[in-house]
Amino acid sequence: MSTLGITDGLVLRPDMRVERADVLVDREAGEILDVRPEIGRSADERLDASDALVAPGLVNAHTHAAMTLLRGYADDKPLESWLREDVWPAEAELTPDDIAAGTRLAALEMIRSGTTAFADMYFSEPRVADVVVESGLRARLGHGVVTVGKDEEAAWADVEESLTVADEVRGVSDRVETAFTPHSLTTVGEEYLREGVARARELGVPVHVHANETRHEVDPVVEERGVRPLEYAREVGLLEPGDFLAHCVHLDATEIDLLAETGASAVHCPASNMKLASGMAPVQRLLDAGVRVGLGTDGAASNNDLDLFGELRDAAMVGKLAAGDASAVAAGDAVRMATAGSADAIGLPGGRIEPGAAADCIVVGLDAAHLTPVHDPVSHLAYAATGSDVRHTVCDGRVLMRDREVLALDAPSVRAEAEERAAALVERAETA
Amino acid sequence: MSTLGITDGLVLRPDMRVERADVLVDREAGEILDVRPEIGRSADERLDASDALVAPGLVNAHTHAAMTLLRGYADDKPLESWLREDVWPAEAELTPDDIAAGTRLAALEMIRSGTTAFADMYFSEPRVADVVVESGLRARLGHGVVTVGKDEEAAWADVEESLTVADEVRGVSDRVETAFTPHSLTTVGEEYLREGVARARELGVPVHVHANETRHEVDPVVEERGVRPLEYAREVGLLEPGDFLAHCVHLDATEIDLLAETGASAVHCPASNMKLASGMAPVQRLLDAGVRVGLGTDGAASNNDLDLFGELRDAAMVGKLAAGDASAVAAGDAVRMATAGSADAIGLPGGRIEPGAAADCIVVGLDAAHLTPVHDPVSHLAYAATGSDVRHTVCDGRVLMRDREVLALDAPSVRAEAEERAAALVERAETA
Ligand SMILES: [Zn+2]
Ligand SMILES: [Zn+2]
Repeated sequence: MSTLGITDGLVLRPDMRVERADVLVDREAGEILDVRPEIGRSADERLDASDALVAPGLVNAHTHAAMTLLRGYADDKPLESWLREDVWPAEAELTPDDIAAGTRLAALEMIRSGTTAFADMYFSEPRVADVVVESGLRARLGHGVVTVGKDEEAAWADVEESLTVADEVRGVSDRVETAFTPHSLTTVGEEYLREGVARARELGVPVHVHANETRHEVDPVVEERGVRPLEYAREVGLLEPGDFLAHCVHLDATEIDLLAETGASAVHCPASNMKLASGMAPVQRLLDAGVRVGLGTDGAASNNDLDLFGELRDAAMVGKLAAGDASAVAAGDAVRMATAGSADAIGLPGGRIEPGAAADCIVVGLDAAHLTPVHDPVSHLAYAATGSDVRHTVCDGRVLMRDREVLALDAPSVRAEAEERAAALVERAETA
Repeated sequence: MSTLGITDGLVLRPDMRVERADVLVDREAGEILDVRPEIGRSADERLDASDALVAPGLVNAHTHAAMTLLRGYADDKPLESWLREDVWPAEAELTPDDIAAGTRLAALEMIRSGTTAFADMYFSEPRVADVVVESGLRARLGHGVVTVGKDEEAAWADVEESLTVADEVRGVSDRVETAFTPHSLTTVGEEYLREGVARARELGVPVHVHANETRHEVDPVVEERGVRPLEYAREVGLLEPGDFLAHCVHLDATEIDLLAETGASAVHCPASNMKLASGMAPVQRLLDAGVRVGLGTDGAASNNDLDLFGELRDAAMVGKLAAGDASAVAAGDAVRMATAGSADAIGLPGGRIEPGAAADCIVVGLDAAHLTPVHDPVSHLAYAATGSDVRHTVCDGRVLMRDREVLALDAPSVRAEAEERAAALVERAETA
């Protein structure tokens, strides 16, 4: 057995308590063997965690990784015109090579900011899977289906592609799982949704979908069908345990109960919801109802980064604002959302530091002015740390970043290729 | 003449356009001489800005710097119980040496996150002034007055102390100005407020005060006096040009007009307002009315850091949420708020990169995964950069941080002293 020892740090345990201990990892099994003082000293490989906090790797439960190429391309516009005038025209020009390059940039950014796993909904997902394998991260991937505005043949082809990706891409690595990913309840027609979801059940993959992000998505469903969107979702076969719904901003009490009863998860995307003025998700109410809540950045174009530390902070901040209560969504709740909450929501291992758990961990340096003094390291994770404070990143027992140097990816060439492809993409989109 | 050249960067101009140029600085005068390509190459001292953006130093228009000692000490509590149970008991134990140590930690954090000037309201301000001088920052300082709960003698003594500080501390350096700083419209009685403000006018110092932060501050004024708080403020002599009001969350249309008409400034503190569930300030409405708006972190205990990049992002994000409009408070508006807006609000030089302006600038590295690609550097400042991306910090023509190394302060000893004093402070507060 070959071991990795993460030594001399404070360790964040699943109950949000912090203790001084080493973390000993079985590198081949990618598993945490033990958490105890001094057990890491004789490991085959060591990571220094002195003056630092060892925490579970953060899990980004909803993103469109390759949208890093459009980071800062168009801001400060309402959702509809932003999509129609900027995002969709640019996305229409994306090549599979662009998507690979954008995802590689996203992977670099995620590793540098302490994210070890993510759920992706985009295009050219086999290429995304290759980048996941190359980078050392974990992911649950899905091809996003849109049927509105397409003829029947094209619509069915899109459903088929998502199912094919769900079936075939999951084989490429232990670290890659898949989902059937209809874009949303309003951009995929009912017959496609019913058929796609039924086929996903046969394949044994969960469903990842946008839901109740804006009022414009909710009102038409209520008007046309006389039920709330999540009631409709249930009717077409959604909301099984394992399914996860991004956004969940505009929910009524019935819908919160439905999530709690069915065991489907909500993925909170507070930054995207603010930036697009979509609203504030009722996060404390979801937690109170016992709904599993994960945390996602959404795409970099509506955030504008993939740093989950920003989301952690936003979740706690907006949670209080939405509840009108400064004690809502406490620091520990936000940290749990970004770790075990997200991992469980998207059905990947990780999210907790305990013997037998997946060895997905980060070491967050506390030796910085903005993290001094250390009255409470959990508070620092939620309110004061950023991705730049992550010293080392470990996924599946393998060190992906050591002392801020990413090992599996060559940062300068990843950045240069993304910069070049982004410029060419925008050029094509604007002359198209 | 001795010069500093900031070379090979992109430069953010006051109109929010970005151009490739050097910035040439007169180090003794602390003034920007010129902004043109290649003029920095033969300067006496050079700062490399390649792959970076040269921006005005950020200005923190409202903080309580020494509260860094209480960072993360008590979170997730409603304002009233947080103050009564945690903050005030700890503050009662603060010594002047504690305040100097906490302010020194704040100065270190500010320099490292690109802040070059701040407005402070706290205690032991002569000691705060010493730290400002030592650190190389600029500041407008004031002793915070509270009269409720004090007998008449103690209340007048507190007013006198604030006026004495305002009069005497402003002499200590060109970089230190002062203000009369009643804590708020409800924690300082009317007679003290009238007299203090009148005396401040004689001294020629502005007034820095908390206003309309929570509904609990607004409702009693409306009930007891039959006017809105800012109408009352006007009656007691406040709202002269140069005065600045922190928070301004709960404003009605009359009050927004009053700010616009009088020329007093609002200081937006979005993170503090979220964390304490105080509400969302109507920032876009303030901007539309022509009110000068600055940006502040408030104290580190309600934020929990002094990184104005977080505030920039929050201002744009919450501005959209408050307006229900994704085009509200655009990136450039937020950046202007944190630079020229804040500098003008607190009446200190800086906030713009142009010939003749104060040489307060920062160099923000764009060579990072989370800032790639660079479609729009202003968007990156608002939405994707953090204080950790600041490469160099310059204030008054002097380099305060070069390549992430703070020159005027010894970071390890500043952190160690703060950590020690914070632990002892909490110990005293909890056994008191
Ligand atoms: Zn999305
Ligand atoms: Zn304050």
